[in-house]
Amino acid sequence: MSFPRLDLVAIPGSLRTGSLNRALARALDELCPDDTAVEVIDLHGVPLYNGDLDTDQDRPAPVQALKDRIREADGVILVTPEYNHGVPGVLKNALDWVSRPSYRSPMAHKPCGLMGAAPGGSGTMRAQQHLKVILLGMAAQVFPHPGVAVSRARDKIREGRLEDEGTREFVASYLAELASWVRRVRPD
Amino acid sequence: MSFPRLDLVAIPGSLRTGSLNRALARALDELCPDDTAVEVIDLHGVPLYNGDLDTDQDRPAPVQALKDRIREADGVILVTPEYNHGVPGVLKNALDWVSRPSYRSPMAHKPCGLMGAAPGGSGTMRAQQHLKVILLGMAAQVFPHPGVAVSRARDKIREGRLEDEGTREFVASYLAELASWVRRVRPD
Repeated sequence: MSFPRLDLVAIPGSLRTGSLNRALARALDELCPDDTAVEVIDLHGVPLYNGDLDTDQDRPAPVQALKDRIREADGVILVTPEYNHGVPGVLKNALDWVSRPSYRSPMAHKPCGLMGAAPGGSGTMRAQQHLKVILLGMAAQVFPHPGVAVSRARDKIREGRLEDEGTREFVASYLAELASWVRRVRPD
Repeated sequence: MSFPRLDLVAIPGSLRTGSLNRALARALDELCPDDTAVEVIDLHGVPLYNGDLDTDQDRPAPVQALKDRIREADGVILVTPEYNHGVPGVLKNALDWVSRPSYRSPMAHKPCGLMGAAPGGSGTMRAQQHLKVILLGMAAQVFPHPGVAVSRARDKIREGRLEDEGTREFVASYLAELASWVRRVRPD
């Protein structure tokens, strides 16, 4: 291929060891096109947002590292659980840090895809609706796509691996379309 | 009055020392009816949600204390900032902890009011829309009211005090209606 390699990061929104969404995020690098890589980012070190600490002197090191990694990446994939019909506080909290300063942050115009997995029937669709509004609220570019919502995820993800063949194929096709879109819309 | 005293807690969704929303929350006890008290709860000690630690053995003590206090209270007032058109991760994170176990948590059927203050024109109205969906998602009862959205809040809240007379009157009338509704709908 003549394209340079596409560098995507995936951010699962759960800290749980057996997280379905971390397992889904880990499958993305296998399922993406050959000219694309997806690195999974862990939110364990990112503390609760406190505007008093959001200065160049006091910003926690894991927050600065996350901001730098997102700025460098061509695009971001949010892999969200759904808690209480919304986005987990853990994921929103990380986005609150990386979205500063408003409209000039590493998220501004960053191409973003989103997906999620949940044990129930919603497959995180309600959380994803909120997440789209939130991402647009920080001036990110949101991939316009019906979305990947993995419902009944305990039947499809076992022992940390996305096993369901239909889901793997759908996610692979999503990633191919996402990669093509990111190449088109990412800022120079 | 023949009514027993009504016990409400207010939860500001910011950790910042000069938070407009903490200042708004602190004004509520002054502005509420005589037979009602509003205690402000601080979220500083509540860590990021991790389902692995959400067991009776491992649950962090500040989380258990928050759950116990909410269970005891007659009602809750969420006082939310708006970050990225949504609810701050800090506040959503606390709600994620206290909403477990689903539909049998201290939030289930708990009467809830909501309000917020922001420097801009929205007055947190977008965050409050998300918050209503989230609260209903944990089976809380949401006070049906057009709401308190304090816009241009830096003109109305100075040095940690809600000064604007029109806002004080509107908040006082909201609290009177809220208190009356909480008495009617709270579970026995």
